[in-house]
Amino acid sequence: MVSIRRLALEEAHITGGFWSRKIETVAREMLPHQWLALNDEVPGAEPSHAVENFRIAAGEAGGEFKGNIFQDSDVAKWIEAASYSLSHHPDPALEARVDEVVRLIAKAQRPDGYVNTYFIVARPDKRWADLAWGHELYCAGHLFEAAVAHNAATGKTTLLDVARRYADCIDGVFGPGGGKIRGVCGHPEIELALFRLFAATGEERYRNLAIFFLEERGRDAASFDGKEPLGFHIPATKAFGRDYFLNHERVREQADATGHSVRAVYLYAAMADEYAATGDEDLLRALRLIWESLVSRRMYVTGGIGSQAQGERFTSDYDLPPDTAYTETCAAIGLAFWAARMTGIEGDSSYADVFERVVYNGALSGVSLDGTRYFYVNPLEVTPSVIACRQDHEHVQGQRVKWNACACCPPNIARLVASMASYIYGSSGDELWVHHYAESESDTLVSGIRLRVSQRTGYPWSGSIALFVDPDRELGLTLKLRIPGWCRSFACSINGSKVEAADISRGYISIRRTWMPGDMVELELEMPVLMLRADPRISELAGKLAIQRGPLVYCVESLDNGVGLQRFVLDLEAPAEASFDPKLMGGCVRILAPGWREDDWPETGEGFPPYAARKRGLKRVGIVAVPYHLWGNRAPGGEMRVWLGSGG
Amino acid sequence: MVSIRRLALEEAHITGGFWSRKIETVAREMLPHQWLALNDEVPGAEPSHAVENFRIAAGEAGGEFKGNIFQDSDVAKWIEAASYSLSHHPDPALEARVDEVVRLIAKAQRPDGYVNTYFIVARPDKRWADLAWGHELYCAGHLFEAAVAHNAATGKTTLLDVARRYADCIDGVFGPGGGKIRGVCGHPEIELALFRLFAATGEERYRNLAIFFLEERGRDAASFDGKEPLGFHIPATKAFGRDYFLNHERVREQADATGHSVRAVYLYAAMADEYAATGDEDLLRALRLIWESLVSRRMYVTGGIGSQAQGERFTSDYDLPPDTAYTETCAAIGLAFWAARMTGIEGDSSYADVFERVVYNGALSGVSLDGTRYFYVNPLEVTPSVIACRQDHEHVQGQRVKWNACACCPPNIARLVASMASYIYGSSGDELWVHHYAESESDTLVSGIRLRVSQRTGYPWSGSIALFVDPDRELGLTLKLRIPGWCRSFACSINGSKVEAADISRGYISIRRTWMPGDMVELELEMPVLMLRADPRISELAGKLAIQRGPLVYCVESLDNGVGLQRFVLDLEAPAEASFDPKLMGGCVRILAPGWREDDWPETGEGFPPYAARKRGLKRVGIVAVPYHLWGNRAPGGEMRVWLGSGG
Repeated sequence: MVSIRRLALEEAHITGGFWSRKIETVAREMLPHQWLALNDEVPGAEPSHAVENFRIAAGEAGGEFKGNIFQDSDVAKWIEAASYSLSHHPDPALEARVDEVVRLIAKAQRPDGYVNTYFIVARPDKRWADLAWGHELYCAGHLFEAAVAHNAATGKTTLLDVARRYADCIDGVFGPGGGKIRGVCGHPEIELALFRLFAATGEERYRNLAIFFLEERGRDAASFDGKEPLGFHIPATKAFGRDYFLNHERVREQADATGHSVRAVYLYAAMADEYAATGDEDLLRALRLIWESLVSRRMYVTGGIGSQAQGERFTSDYDLPPDTAYTETCAAIGLAFWAARMTGIEGDSSYADVFERVVYNGALSGVSLDGTRYFYVNPLEVTPSVIACRQDHEHVQGQRVKWNACACCPPNIARLVASMASYIYGSSGDELWVHHYAESESDTLVSGIRLRVSQRTGYPWSGSIALFVDPDRELGLTLKLRIPGWCRSFACSINGSKVEAADISRGYISIRRTWMPGDMVELELEMPVLMLRADPRISELAGKLAIQRGPLVYCVESLDNGVGLQRFVLDLEAPAEASFDPKLMGGCVRILAPGWREDDWPETGEGFPPYAARKRGLKRVGIVAVPYHLWGNRAPGGEMRVWLGSGG
Repeated sequence: MVSIRRLALEEAHITGGFWSRKIETVAREMLPHQWLALNDEVPGAEPSHAVENFRIAAGEAGGEFKGNIFQDSDVAKWIEAASYSLSHHPDPALEARVDEVVRLIAKAQRPDGYVNTYFIVARPDKRWADLAWGHELYCAGHLFEAAVAHNAATGKTTLLDVARRYADCIDGVFGPGGGKIRGVCGHPEIELALFRLFAATGEERYRNLAIFFLEERGRDAASFDGKEPLGFHIPATKAFGRDYFLNHERVREQADATGHSVRAVYLYAAMADEYAATGDEDLLRALRLIWESLVSRRMYVTGGIGSQAQGERFTSDYDLPPDTAYTETCAAIGLAFWAARMTGIEGDSSYADVFERVVYNGALSGVSLDGTRYFYVNPLEVTPSVIACRQDHEHVQGQRVKWNACACCPPNIARLVASMASYIYGSSGDELWVHHYAESESDTLVSGIRLRVSQRTGYPWSGSIALFVDPDRELGLTLKLRIPGWCRSFACSINGSKVEAADISRGYISIRRTWMPGDMVELELEMPVLMLRADPRISELAGKLAIQRGPLVYCVESLDNGVGLQRFVLDLEAPAEASFDPKLMGGCVRILAPGWREDDWPETGEGFPPYAARKRGLKRVGIVAVPYHLWGNRAPGGEMRVWLGSGG
């Protein structure tokens, strides 16, 4: 086990560039907008009622619980995101809002520590009665994550105290001992949250409870069979098998990424936490098998996961249709969480490659550039005329929406973006790892010496990175710089001298030396336009190409190219041009790729079957591609597609 | 109006070749097998209860109605098919079975003429109360068609009398007059059946009632809104709009092929009957618009129609996904019925082209070569691994089944095949039309002179046709020979002398001469292997090719080519070979097309995303294609696809 510790938000900051603007959007737009949404104050958006539920549970309002049974988690994720934002972006008004909702939560908490507005308000007799669908432990997990983030950002223990009391309550109810419930939550989340709560408090019972829930999973695989949800109706479908809940096998026996994709990656992240805590090699073997299953056979090129709307789930190997893909924003985010943990365990850049792929593509696509609209699903091909007429495309949104009745994604993307700085750097012994490139700085102790490392870069638009390694005094240190999987050629220099024959292992350059204050490393990652093919086992992608440059997957939009995107054919023989356009969607690299467009058939003036033995009429065109995550930001309702035809 | 009368089964016979074997299969396998199925005597097949329902309604058995609300129509279609079979294939045992079930139906008939086992047995209080979903008039229509066929084949009036009494009953209930119901059936069928009953009986009230139902349709477009079916549950879905019932507009105002595809083509066939009866040009204009909509924008290359499982319906222009296609066998059959009527009205070979396309491909695929198994849906791409995992492929059958709980298709394909001889020849004044090529003979009167025309041909495997024109004495006659749309070059001779510069109009050669006993016309239709492209507006087919030879669309099966059919790429530059293989599925033309197969990616020994910037690894192969309608006959459960990749 490598055991690379992520530098936390106290130690790492975004200082400019791509992520700075995203983080500002979280602070300026997303958090205020989401607060309004959670308070049902966004005109035209689906009402949330989430904060009102806490008011009712706290006895400060009357009325009934409304919303999904897991509505509390939206509030918790919002607090978590707000806390991350407060850690680098002080905002007294925001902090006051957070304090207010924390006060409500504390007031809603029952004397025994229990906090869940659905069960408090609507079904007080049914606590823990619906483990399959009730989401109680899931909501508790999000509350714990929020509490840890809130405490770290503000130093306040108001929410952490609530979380501890609730965790103690749960610890008293669940466990292997006599009189306790042996069972797991239908939606994993509590497990990884308890590891975080343990890390924040040092309370070993929380770690042990996390391990209990993980080890319990799959022990009684039949326990959810035929369970009818208490709080809502789920039509019976074969999409809800035991694997849907990830309760089909003991975690050590699992080998395929399966079931509900969000549930799956939250569980895998917790399994990684368990491995980090215990070093159990059987668990690592399972994690590696599941990882390979997901990454090699069940993941879209955007990092999106979950091929099917029914059950929001994984299906089978190489079943990756681009148009009916579910690829929920939350699943992409969960995959990033898991990938970051695997990076810490394995110290192998292939994990950070997936983090990068999913964050820059399938996750960021979930929110509009202005931070006010969201995609729940993120398919790789959207054709409004098809969505309008085909019922099997019913789940596809042709444009981002202000809010969803099921609003898990908006605060989830906010918490990922607001905490991005914490994914960039890692530390293990006298090694400092740079997993990701972004305008940022870190400030931590290595071998007892204060070390500041900062980056200047136009990444992801440019592959030029300047790293300033600035120890307080000379420091023997191995700097580990990730060479992304998409990069085939790079150059590295220290203080202007080229580093020849760099030592590369598992995708990281290791530079071992005694660093002096003011040292500078320059890294130049070649960032050509790549034309990707898909494994031929992916049926729908046979003969097709996707454009990628750096970490960004591109797409074509009808806005730039006209409707009928199926008509476009990329020319592999001619070079594509990439150019930064400062006016395009706040500044981004646009790609112009040579290719063809299939012409209309000549009008014969009479009806004829749309099938004929004729040459394909291809006309030379330049195909304009923009980053996938930015699609749909300029004009709503257009066509988009990632995979295009190839050849002539 | 051209008004070409179809030669009926009394005047036209199949004498050998392709259709002879199909018709024998109907007589020897399908009719006995279906009789067993209708009597719940096929082990492992879904029970029908259809005959038992009549026994119960006739008071000869106890118990409850079982099956679909339209279960009676299965029996009626079986009687119709059996009658066609009896007309050219006397079989006392079969005739006795028919007589027995006709006796039951007559006994079940109520004193006022009403016959419908669901409403007699289960809901006697609800007659005509559920026009949207009740299928009463639909079932009546099939009973009338069966009665007409039974009378024509056997001369018996037993069932025709039942039909007349029932039609009189309906005529007393429905109509524009005071106290009568102004309404239509949710499933068209009664209309075309009443035209047939009129033709068989000369009773003008039946024709007028047919016209009433047609003209009534769409008058009260809201009448079916929100109707809950009496006899079964239909989950609410946007697939069931007003157009689903074809009740959204008056028939003259309809312009697009829309709604439930079987309902649609049964209605259009009846509209053609109304035009034939009235000559109303507004109706013809609507028919032409709908025809063009269907044929040019909403039909698969197999002639299949209905792109979507939900609502078994048409969707929108060029929305023709090959894998989720519904393309119900009954819809293909209904399209053939309509196309035959349009051929008679228009005398234009483009209609017969569609008849040929749909019959030889999307309809015949519905039954196994041995006549014992059926496809309800006929998509153009079947991948068992995808069917197994994706819920949006739930409707796709990977192999034909013995019977369906909804068994509309099996007797429908039987009646089409058993009556095929009646679609071959047409007569109008002193013109004899040969619409289709098949080993057959006709025997009719032209200008008062007995004329026998017979064909010797290996069609559809060969394009060589010898026509023997044999009038009793010399006869001035225009022989009209159809040149199929797929044929680009042909030669024609009379008694060995080449016919130069043949007069072709609307796709038919006209040969006007005085014919002598023993005259022979030879027609040689060039039948090359065609590689078809699809209109670029059909998104899923961009860049793909389908193989057609003569009227037959081909497909590739994994049985011949190995699994992973998405990997195959046709080479347009190299000629494909067609060869008749007498041992292949009873004898058929097999095509060997040069092309490539995409290789596996090299094993790297480690997991990696299935996306890479690499050349497509294509290996030269011969691609084996077999007629689409024959797929799945050798080994069940394989992959099949019609549209393949093209280029290199």
